Amino acid sequence: MPRLRVGIVGATGYTGGELLRFLLNHEGVEVTCITSKTYGGRPLGESYPSLRGFLDLDCLSLDVEKIAPMADLFFLGLPHKMAMETAIPLVDLGKKVIDLSADFRLKDPTVYERWYGIRHASLPHLSQAVYGLPELHKDQIQRSVLIANPGCYPTGAILGLAPLLKERRIELDPIIIDSKSGTSGAGRRLDLAVHFTECNEGLRAYAVAVHRHTPEIEQELSSLAGQPLSVSFTPHLVPMTRGILSSMYVRPKRPLPDQEALALYRDFYRQAPFVRILPEGRLPDTKHVYGSNFCDIGMRFDARTGRLVVISAIDNLVKGASGQAIQCMNIQSGFDERKGLWQAGLFP
Amino acid sequence: MPRLRVGIVGATGYTGGELLRFLLNHEGVEVTCITSKTYGGRPLGESYPSLRGFLDLDCLSLDVEKIAPMADLFFLGLPHKMAMETAIPLVDLGKKVIDLSADFRLKDPTVYERWYGIRHASLPHLSQAVYGLPELHKDQIQRSVLIANPGCYPTGAILGLAPLLKERRIELDPIIIDSKSGTSGAGRRLDLAVHFTECNEGLRAYAVAVHRHTPEIEQELSSLAGQPLSVSFTPHLVPMTRGILSSMYVRPKRPLPDQEALALYRDFYRQAPFVRILPEGRLPDTKHVYGSNFCDIGMRFDARTGRLVVISAIDNLVKGASGQAIQCMNIQSGFDERKGLWQAGLFP
Amino acid sequence: MPRLRVGIVGATGYTGGELLRFLLNHEGVEVTCITSKTYGGRPLGESYPSLRGFLDLDCLSLDVEKIAPMADLFFLGLPHKMAMETAIPLVDLGKKVIDLSADFRLKDPTVYERWYGIRHASLPHLSQAVYGLPELHKDQIQRSVLIANPGCYPTGAILGLAPLLKERRIELDPIIIDSKSGTSGAGRRLDLAVHFTECNEGLRAYAVAVHRHTPEIEQELSSLAGQPLSVSFTPHLVPMTRGILSSMYVRPKRPLPDQEALALYRDFYRQAPFVRILPEGRLPDTKHVYGSNFCDIGMRFDARTGRLVVISAIDNLVKGASGQAIQCMNIQSGFDERKGLWQAGLFP
Amino acid sequence: MPRLRVGIVGATGYTGGELLRFLLNHEGVEVTCITSKTYGGRPLGESYPSLRGFLDLDCLSLDVEKIAPMADLFFLGLPHKMAMETAIPLVDLGKKVIDLSADFRLKDPTVYERWYGIRHASLPHLSQAVYGLPELHKDQIQRSVLIANPGCYPTGAILGLAPLLKERRIELDPIIIDSKSGTSGAGRRLDLAVHFTECNEGLRAYAVAVHRHTPEIEQELSSLAGQPLSVSFTPHLVPMTRGILSSMYVRPKRPLPDQEALALYRDFYRQAPFVRILPEGRLPDTKHVYGSNFCDIGMRFDARTGRLVVISAIDNLVKGASGQAIQCMNIQSGFDERKGLWQAGLFP
Repeated sequence: MPRLRVGIVGATGYTGGELLRFLLNHEGVEVTCITSKTYGGRPLGESYPSLRGFLDLDCLSLDVEKIAPMADLFFLGLPHKMAMETAIPLVDLGKKVIDLSADFRLKDPTVYERWYGIRHASLPHLSQAVYGLPELHKDQIQRSVLIANPGCYPTGAILGLAPLLKERRIELDPIIIDSKSGTSGAGRRLDLAVHFTECNEGLRAYAVAVHRHTPEIEQELSSLAGQPLSVSFTPHLVPMTRGILSSMYVRPKRPLPDQEALALYRDFYRQAPFVRILPEGRLPDTKHVYGSNFCDIGMRFDARTGRLVVISAIDNLVKGASGQAIQCMNIQSGFDERKGLWQAGLFP
Repeated sequence: MPRLRVGIVGATGYTGGELLRFLLNHEGVEVTCITSKTYGGRPLGESYPSLRGFLDLDCLSLDVEKIAPMADLFFLGLPHKMAMETAIPLVDLGKKVIDLSADFRLKDPTVYERWYGIRHASLPHLSQAVYGLPELHKDQIQRSVLIANPGCYPTGAILGLAPLLKERRIELDPIIIDSKSGTSGAGRRLDLAVHFTECNEGLRAYAVAVHRHTPEIEQELSSLAGQPLSVSFTPHLVPMTRGILSSMYVRPKRPLPDQEALALYRDFYRQAPFVRILPEGRLPDTKHVYGSNFCDIGMRFDARTGRLVVISAIDNLVKGASGQAIQCMNIQSGFDERKGLWQAGLFP
Repeated sequence: MPRLRVGIVGATGYTGGELLRFLLNHEGVEVTCITSKTYGGRPLGESYPSLRGFLDLDCLSLDVEKIAPMADLFFLGLPHKMAMETAIPLVDLGKKVIDLSADFRLKDPTVYERWYGIRHASLPHLSQAVYGLPELHKDQIQRSVLIANPGCYPTGAILGLAPLLKERRIELDPIIIDSKSGTSGAGRRLDLAVHFTECNEGLRAYAVAVHRHTPEIEQELSSLAGQPLSVSFTPHLVPMTRGILSSMYVRPKRPLPDQEALALYRDFYRQAPFVRILPEGRLPDTKHVYGSNFCDIGMRFDARTGRLVVISAIDNLVKGASGQAIQCMNIQSGFDERKGLWQAGLFP
Repeated sequence: MPRLRVGIVGATGYTGGELLRFLLNHEGVEVTCITSKTYGGRPLGESYPSLRGFLDLDCLSLDVEKIAPMADLFFLGLPHKMAMETAIPLVDLGKKVIDLSADFRLKDPTVYERWYGIRHASLPHLSQAVYGLPELHKDQIQRSVLIANPGCYPTGAILGLAPLLKERRIELDPIIIDSKSGTSGAGRRLDLAVHFTECNEGLRAYAVAVHRHTPEIEQELSSLAGQPLSVSFTPHLVPMTRGILSSMYVRPKRPLPDQEALALYRDFYRQAPFVRILPEGRLPDTKHVYGSNFCDIGMRFDARTGRLVVISAIDNLVKGASGQAIQCMNIQSGFDERKGLWQAGLFP
């Protein structure tokens, strides 16, 4: 069987690097094209010394007409806006596209406009796009040519709450999501906020009440609940490289002991190889999913207050970005969902 | 004026070390006695190389009758149970005691017994003790010989919510407190959970729904609210040495814009030199209070969901333990509240 | 072809965990037996939550007669002394053994006794053992049943100096090796020296002039040089999880410009897939080999002082331990040297 | 006595922040003027939230004529070149200047030109300047109006080797200095090399053989030795915020047991309150001097190789920069050398 030819647009950011790390071990694909604004014309090893010896390609500049013939499927690791401007012509040229930006995630273009401050470039393409969370939308992913890969925070939050909402087990208000992320989520762009000297040994919240991942979480959770809901979502920056831990506070309609809750989750995710529901009494640690595509979920019901605390852990660059994108590609292109991704995290 | 003679029982744990760091620069006191179980008979510098050259005392073993005459006031850095067994005879011998354990924090002995699993050793002493949070109980601290220094998590949580409850501005349910702590809160005792290799680059929740600081928070917040309330409190372990950030989610009875909320806080804390209410739009960072006795507080009202997020940052070893204990000593012994403590945090 | 049945003795230490991480993706082997002193009788996931879902084996207690039939090859992740006491009977029972301890590394039993303070348990087995550094001893590894896997520091130091000594390009005195290691090198045993709170944000040297890896480095470098030599070796503990960077200071017999030095290295290692000689002007970073089996080497000649500085970077748990052990297994058992190990490091 | 009026030019970099942290607790001085290019016109708390509540000054733009009347002594936290262009007119206007840049450190202007690539702006001022290492040049510092504060690496290296060279106890070749620094040494300027995500969990050498602190070390060591010498100096970047550990490798002319070496050091530094010679068998840790002005020194003679390893630890921002500058100010202005600086480091 000929290998699937894959291109990576924006290959020298962190999501690009992670795509390469996995794809270079994926026997069904061949990376045939990489582009980079910053490292255009230079060999990949300049940008990613960790990949020296693995791929002998130079980075190209981004020119859709020029790169389109070079691959069958493109991953886009671009800022929003530039992402849709690249995805649209690629799709029109018959290419499969998996977009890691936010441009095709929000079904309602007015919501997109409200949170991103710009108008969407193509409603037909938007309506064609599928939200690429395989645990919820596997069938659609299989049939789509344009996949909107979920944001890192939404991945952990949605997977952590889906069974409860789908099964109508909790009140819809309040739903509080307190998320903590490592610094790689901020990308490779220089910023005093992630200057080592300023953020090491420090911890803070940011974008309280205004983070752009909020509508994405609400869209998917509302869909699961069958009615609109809103969430309080607060992201925090933690002095570590990778990982998102989300602590979610909800109120079950009636007491939901740990065993029952865990059984509900296990059942909901029985077909999902990358979701691991932990044994009773265990809680997730981002270190246990470090570098891997797993989402670990644990929970504890507090009978005293009637509240359930659900906790999920992912690697923001893998299940929260590139790993999930490859999982989508696998589904979309007929590979085993786990292909190239079935690795344990790096511990310690 | 003769200096106040101060003894530190359990001087070689982290709270002991921090007490020394500040007291050795406090012109009104003289440290005359230090005890240590682990380092008994050895010079302080063996346990705290950072203090070499500052204090030429050997660590004694703990023998109440022997040490009592050596100081006028004792700080106790002992595990609970051992703390009350030491505090009681010291108080009976006419000594002032500032206890950093939980033994005298909970006014209701049945609550103490429920959460700590042992019976309290002396109800008369318990009823005599004052909860040593100067921002709430300054007058009582001034008159008491037995001070129960607050826990690290409760300090940040109570200071973050006090104005809202005192002024009856929020619903009493739900109150959700999501706290994140550096590793020094776990003390100097060896444990795989804080083994560098296991906890660096990892993030996790622990003791969900069962952490012993919960009743302490509820006691003080109930007292402020004028009626019993309960909170959902979840602690997390973050790969950094010092600092606690608490993110608190509450619902104001009516919309509470940021400016109004901040004005309420500024007014409430106008006499509290160690509480800094940040300007509108700024949020606390544990790094900005690193090594200092400040509690920084910021907040943001989310008009979309009607929820207010309050965030407080402290150094768990200073305002969350030893600095606060010295603040209590200052008040109790007639010094300026800031004496020996008026230092900016270490940034970066 | 039937898979090679592999057992891991001491599977729940860090080297055991790393062996499993790689072996579970190695298509030529099957892990059939794991033992653990600490986690005996419990499932692997208790000790290594990152491996949940990968291997459904419980940890056994170590009983040589009982485990011997269960596998064809055993990796030993045991403390020295216990390692040789286990290796000897396993070899005598016809098993292949790759020992990750120091017990079979030093050819001269008097040197072993001087540095380890005990007598070697079996000179015949010692003389049969091969020092498992594939870049130097590939042929012998292929023919041996007992392989002494090199220490972490020696791996980086020997690979960094081998070409210069083999080609007689440097003076034999002084050879100075200043190495810096992450904390995982200290293992999983609790110790205040690697308690997060005590070692984070700290840096120190240890075991200066007396570290047990010294004779191992000297043995291999002397053999390359064709005459006895001694080195000054100083290890340091760095607040990071993985990685060893070794900075080596030597004096070339005549000026050795960077290009010439690099060419010498490239030639020496042309058959060594896991040694990457960096381009001129580039220096290694432990982060570029994180989690991988590579040894990256760079260098710079200082014409001003006539000294050459060679720098090597490895992941101490992979090329410095478990990865190298699997590389030896591959060679010994007829697999491609890279099998199961050909992965890029985790960056960032 | 009126307070000394102090100005800080370039107050919002890390050295500026550290100057403020100490000066605000120094009873003999008053900070009357701060300038900042980046934060001009804004209150100090915007740049240094840790200092909120301590100093109610806005940052000025740098205009020598305008600021000169505002203070008696100026600290300059500027890049080289800009530093001398500011220092010269300030000195000419009768102000005392303590310059934290390299501009007045190198006595020989040709050496300055060779390493910095520009010509020195004023030889008369250069010849007037004193190298502000109080342990070596106390008398000159007392009499000078222009002090060149030493570099961070040179401080640790020179203090670590001075006694041996002054007492002619070691060979002059080779002298190898392997230094490891936290990231704050790289300043507040954004750079991928100190982007958290790229440098956390990574370790590397940089500027091998070409670091600009080399001639400064050689100048002072040559002066101590009474003859020219050269050193091999290699800096490394370590994933921690503060601290420099320097490991120095030298050959004593005759065996120099630890006790004898330590006695030599204790004698040499008997008047130096900020140098702590550790007890035999102890080695320095940067964490023991964190945030303090101490230089801790330990050593070990290796009888096997005839080499002595000396290790020094400083906080690069304090003894390596701002603390040392204040120590110079104290000496120069008649204060006790320790005033405002006599604090233990922050441990843990």
